[in-house]
Order: sequence, then C-alpha cells, then structure tokens
Amino acid sequence: MTLHAFDLLERVRRQQPVVHHLTNWVTIYDCAQVVKSLGASPVMAHAREEVEDMVQIASALVLNIGTLTPEMIEAMKLAAKAANRKGIPVVLDVCGAGATGLRDRKCLELLDEAPIGVIKGNASEVARIGGQSVRTKGVDAAEVTGDLAALARKLAKEREATVVITGKEDIVTDGARTYRVANGHEMMTRVVGTGCMAASVIGTFVAVERDLAAAAASALACFGIAGEVAASGSQGPVSFKQALLDALYGLDRPTVERLQRVHG
Amino acid sequence: MTLHAFDLLERVRRQQPVVHHLTNWVTIYDCAQVVKSLGASPVMAHAREEVEDMVQIASALVLNIGTLTPEMIEAMKLAAKAANRKGIPVVLDVCGAGATGLRDRKCLELLDEAPIGVIKGNASEVARIGGQSVRTKGVDAAEVTGDLAALARKLAKEREATVVITGKEDIVTDGARTYRVANGHEMMTRVVGTGCMAASVIGTFVAVERDLAAAAASALACFGIAGEVAASGSQGPVSFKQALLDALYGLDRPTVERLQRVHG
Amino acid sequence: MTLHAFDLLERVRRQQPVVHHLTNWVTIYDCAQVVKSLGASPVMAHAREEVEDMVQIASALVLNIGTLTPEMIEAMKLAAKAANRKGIPVVLDVCGAGATGLRDRKCLELLDEAPIGVIKGNASEVARIGGQSVRTKGVDAAEVTGDLAALARKLAKEREATVVITGKEDIVTDGARTYRVANGHEMMTRVVGTGCMAASVIGTFVAVERDLAAAAASALACFGIAGEVAASGSQGPVSFKQALLDALYGLDRPTVERLQRVHG
Repeated sequence: MTLHAFDLLERVRRQQPVVHHLTNWVTIYDCAQVVKSLGASPVMAHAREEVEDMVQIASALVLNIGTLTPEMIEAMKLAAKAANRKGIPVVLDVCGAGATGLRDRKCLELLDEAPIGVIKGNASEVARIGGQSVRTKGVDAAEVTGDLAALARKLAKEREATVVITGKEDIVTDGARTYRVANGHEMMTRVVGTGCMAASVIGTFVAVERDLAAAAASALACFGIAGEVAASGSQGPVSFKQALLDALYGLDRPTVERLQRVHG
Repeated sequence: MTLHAFDLLERVRRQQPVVHHLTNWVTIYDCAQVVKSLGASPVMAHAREEVEDMVQIASALVLNIGTLTPEMIEAMKLAAKAANRKGIPVVLDVCGAGATGLRDRKCLELLDEAPIGVIKGNASEVARIGGQSVRTKGVDAAEVTGDLAALARKLAKEREATVVITGKEDIVTDGARTYRVANGHEMMTRVVGTGCMAASVIGTFVAVERDLAAAAASALACFGIAGEVAASGSQGPVSFKQALLDALYGLDRPTVERLQRVHG
Repeated sequence: MTLHAFDLLERVRRQQPVVHHLTNWVTIYDCAQVVKSLGASPVMAHAREEVEDMVQIASALVLNIGTLTPEMIEAMKLAAKAANRKGIPVVLDVCGAGATGLRDRKCLELLDEAPIGVIKGNASEVARIGGQSVRTKGVDAAEVTGDLAALARKLAKEREATVVITGKEDIVTDGARTYRVANGHEMMTRVVGTGCMAASVIGTFVAVERDLAAAAASALACFGIAGEVAASGSQGPVSFKQALLDALYGLDRPTVERLQRVHG
C-alpha cells in the first residue's frame, strides 16, 4: 500500500475544507491553528443549539473529550448524528480515557449512539476503550503491554471504524489494512497539545479523502514530518511547537517524499 | 480627516485602561495578550453573577460570540446594559454571523437590547447582520458582492453605531464619516485569532477616545502596521503571530507615522 | 534557611507527578505547558462528575478562579475536599480577588469549606482575602500600602496555610518562616499568564515536597530564574513567554545555584 501523503495535503490546501470541532478548552487554539496551518478552515462551536447547523457547512467533525462535561457530550452526540446524516466523517479523540469513570462511560456512549469514523488515542486510552483495564497518568500515555496492532484491529472490527494509536510509531488500521507511521520526533511528547492537534490533522485529511485509514496515516506522516523539520532549530518545547505549526504551513513535496516513513 | 493613530496608542500606554471581555474560548488568550501588548489591562470574566460588577472597573467592554451559548449571551446582555449605564463603549465582534441561525438571532437580540458602540466583523458577517443572505465558511470571510462601504454606512445609521468591516482594506464608518485603513499583511489571514484580536485592539482604543470611528480606525492602523513589521522576519503563521504581538508592544511614533495608510 | 531549589526541580523531573487543575479559560494552556516544561504531567478537568476521580491520580491540586462561575466553584470544592481526604496539597490562586463581590465571597467559601495548603495572589488580591478593602485593576496588581510580610503572616496563621504574595520580590510564609524571593524579571509583568503559571509551578513543587513554604519558595526561584534567562534574547512579551517556558525546560543546576536569590 503506497501512501501519497503529500497528494492529500495538496488536496486540503486546494479544497480548504471547513473542519468543525467540539473540543477541550486547553488546546482549542492549537487545534484551530493546526487546521489553519494546513490551509483549511477550522470552526469551533459547541452550543447544543447550533452544532447541527454548523455541521452543515463542515466537511469533517472532530470531537475531543479532554475537558468533557455531560452537557458537552450531549452536544457531541447531536453533532455526530448530524454528521452521520450528512455523510461526513467523525474523528473522536478519546483524550484521557482510563483516567476517570466519566470519561470511559461517555466515550462508550458516544460510540454506541453514533457511528464514529476514526477513534484516536494513545496506547492506554485506546486500550481502555477496547475494554482493557489500564493505569493512566491522566492525559499522558501509560505503558500498555501486548500487541497494540492486534488491539487496534480488534477495536476497529468491533466498532467498524478506523482506529489510530499514537506513539513512537503510530498504528492506523481499519481492521483490514494496518499502517505504521514512523515519522515524528521525541520533542512532540514534551509539548501540551500534540495529541489533540494530531486528531485535528486527521480530521482535516479525512475531510478530503474518504479512505479513512489512508487519510489518517497520511495526516500522521505529514504531522510527524513537520515535527522532524521543526526539531532542528528549536530551543525547547514551546519554540518547537511554534516551529511545528510553521513547518506544517510550509511543507513541500520533496520534504514529505524524502522523509515519509509509512509501512503498510 | 487626519488621523493621529500614534497619539491614541500613547494615550493607551499612559492611561492603561481596563478592557473587560466576554469572548470565545479559542482566542481568549490572544485577546487578553493583545490588550496587554498595547500597555492596557485586560480582564476576562463571564459569570452572570459578576459581569456587572466587573464593568465598574472597566473603561470599555468587548463582546465576541465566537463560541456563544445562550447563557453566555445572557451574561453579555447584562454586561452591555451595565456598560451603557456607566457610559463606556461596547464593541461587538459578530464572529461567525451567517454560519448558524443561533448566531444571527443572538447578534440581533444583543443589538436590539443594548446600544452597541462598535459593530465589527468581516464582510460576510457584517452583511449578514445588515440583513443580507450570505454564504459563509464558518469564521473565515466569504465573498460578498456589492459596495461594502455603502453596506457599512447603512448599518451604522440603522443601529446608530460605528461599523467596522475588516478585510484587505478595512472600512470604518459611523454613517457620516468613512475611513479606509490599508494597513495590514496577508499573513494575518493565515493565523487564527487576528480578527478577534482586532476587536480587542479597537476595544482598547475606544477606552481612551470617545470618537469611536477615529479610535477604531486608529486601532486598525496600529494593528495592521504591527502586522507589516512582523511579517519581515517570520517563518510561518505562528512565528508571525508572536512577532505581531511583540511588534505592537514596541511600536513607536516614527514607524506608525511612516507606515500609516488611512484614507478618510 | 538554605533553600535547595534545584534539588526539588530534579525531584519533579524524576517523579513526574500528575498536577490536577481547575483553572481559568484564559491561561489554561500555559498552566498546562508550564507543568509539562518542568517535566511533570498536567491534567485539566473540571466536570463535577469526575474531579474527585481525577484527584485520585494526582499528587497536587491547583485551583484558579480567574474565570470562575458558581458551578466551577462547586466543582473546586469537591476536588479540594477529595484532595484533603487523599492528603495531597491544594494551591489556590485568588486571581482577581477584590475586583468583584463574587470573587471575594467564593474565595472565602473555598477557604472555609476545605483546608487550602497554599494561598497565592498578588498584593492586592491577598490583601483582599486578608480582609482589607483594596482598589484593584481586575487581575493586574494594584498598590497596597503597609507591611506585606506581616499581612501574609497574619493570613497564614488565620488559615493555617502557606501564603504567597507575588511581586517584584515574592513573599512566602507559613506564619513561622518567611522567604523572600528576589528572582524574576520585569518582562513577566508584560505577559498575560505569568501569575497563573506561577501558581502551577508552585503546585508542581508541592507535589513532591510537603514542606509547602520551602517548596513554594523553590518554585518561585526556579520560575523567576527562567524569566531572567529568557529576558536576554527576547524581542517582546510573547517571545519572552516562549523563551521562559523553554528556559524552564532546560534549567540546570549551575544556572539555578548561580542566580538563586532567596532570603529566609
């Protein structure tokens, strides 16, 4: 499976899709800016009274439960159902799953009530959604033993979704095909928000390509490559984050094709 | 009409007015920092139970509906009425008007229930508030046909307000006088939050000058000039935003007087 | 009282404690990133339904009332009581106290209903909590006359807490011992969020050291030193903030021991 990550990035820049978010209050700016840096158009709106309307102008929906409340989850359900009716993909970042009972329950409710195209998290978050008992450190990844790809494939089949596990090597699978994305840089773990941004990048790519697994793997390749480019000149985590968002904006075909490390 | 934009900036730095915001959760930090970079004192407070109290220590009020909820709009009405009673100006950023029915209805409610000194948006947002049917892309500007200045003047007269339409050339009018501000840089459209920050800069300038049209035009001239200064050294949108906020902090009279392009 | 500030920073980096926040929407990202820059693990969660659970994985709790609502205060009370039961320290940033009646009442309610380990604010905020009538400028410090150290000691004894007054010279006291921390840089007052970040740095240090006064003074010394390091190369307030967060990440023993200015 050859992946043409840059072709999809070009399509994003040409089509400039609107990507609607219901997300957390910590990284909401970075989620918006990463979409903008890709050349697309972010919109963040969470009022129950307007999310269904907002979905009508969007090409993808990104949900992130980082600072969930029961009210926010209800708005997410409305938005996800509207997205399903309209036929646009939904990306769910199961941010912090495993940390509290509320998170686990609300993730499962979302998955039960509205088909989700892409389920994304780090190893311990996805393991928890897959039914394993895990120890977490809140929103940072904890150790998970066992075969992550098998875990992802099992969940993908159960939920008829593309499952993404981010980590040193990202795993992307729709149950049939599995991509491993080896791009990225260790500095990405030192910055708050790279996980959330990754979900928004995936949301932007699935907005222009309905092969969700290929789109998600392409998204993570581009995001990881931008991280590699950014790492060279940065002085610490925050200058790195700025360089990452700038690098994504400037990414060109030679750089992506030279650095892309995706195994299908 | 000669505009002395730098004189107003100096007055801001000397008086350090408190600028109270009820704004969105995406760009709330940048709205606060842009006020701080100007030398003034931002305060962000949205609880229904305290907004009227907070207005008492403020010299201007900025409302931005970017992530509105019905509860937030109720708090905005309380704050706007308190500002009217106190005699301080209110700036309303009609962020995302045209994208959903909720936004349109709530903007009109705000305008009907409390006099607003400055109504600010991009072309499609202001057109929508002026009663036109428009297609929007959420919070990014969409094409609007017709004479924007005439549209702004009409709305200004109807609402007895100063109307600001931001764009490649900003239009500022109180119905009688119309300023066109040609400062700014294309990179400002690549960053999330420049629109919201523009409203906060306007809020800071009207805090020290009650000729609202002159104050708004001066604000946009200074903000645009900072963008021009920032563009020279930046590597992409996010380093540009940082340079913009730093440039605003360092803006001096020779730079403003050399670069100011306002036609009255 | 010799303070070994860098020893505590090393302990933070080694133990990587989870620091749970219920904080404001303006600086929530910076509060999370400052914890991450120190090598610890921030988690931000405010739903009434999960704060008690989240406290179970945390080593300290930071409360900041910057954008309080009555609902948020109720969640803070639940979290603080859970933290007390678990025996982890609670830091309260009385952000904006004195600006409105709501803030004053809710701060006192919090202090009355759950023991708070560290009460932190600028001079006018802490004076207000100590029962003085003060004039404030919202969240920026206002002039307070009188002996700040005496004020802090009095409040510390009344509340059986460590009290921190930030300013040109920070004061830290548990009623018995008083530290004065002379580190820091004037640029820290030009950036939105340094006050909030200071509370999060304190929260991170008390997560690894139960001598709260020593931990808080060490935290402020490290934070101030990072500010001094950052000031040399920055172009304005926002590049300064980035350099500050990066400097904190890179802080080493020789730098801390050379620059530390704490008087016990």
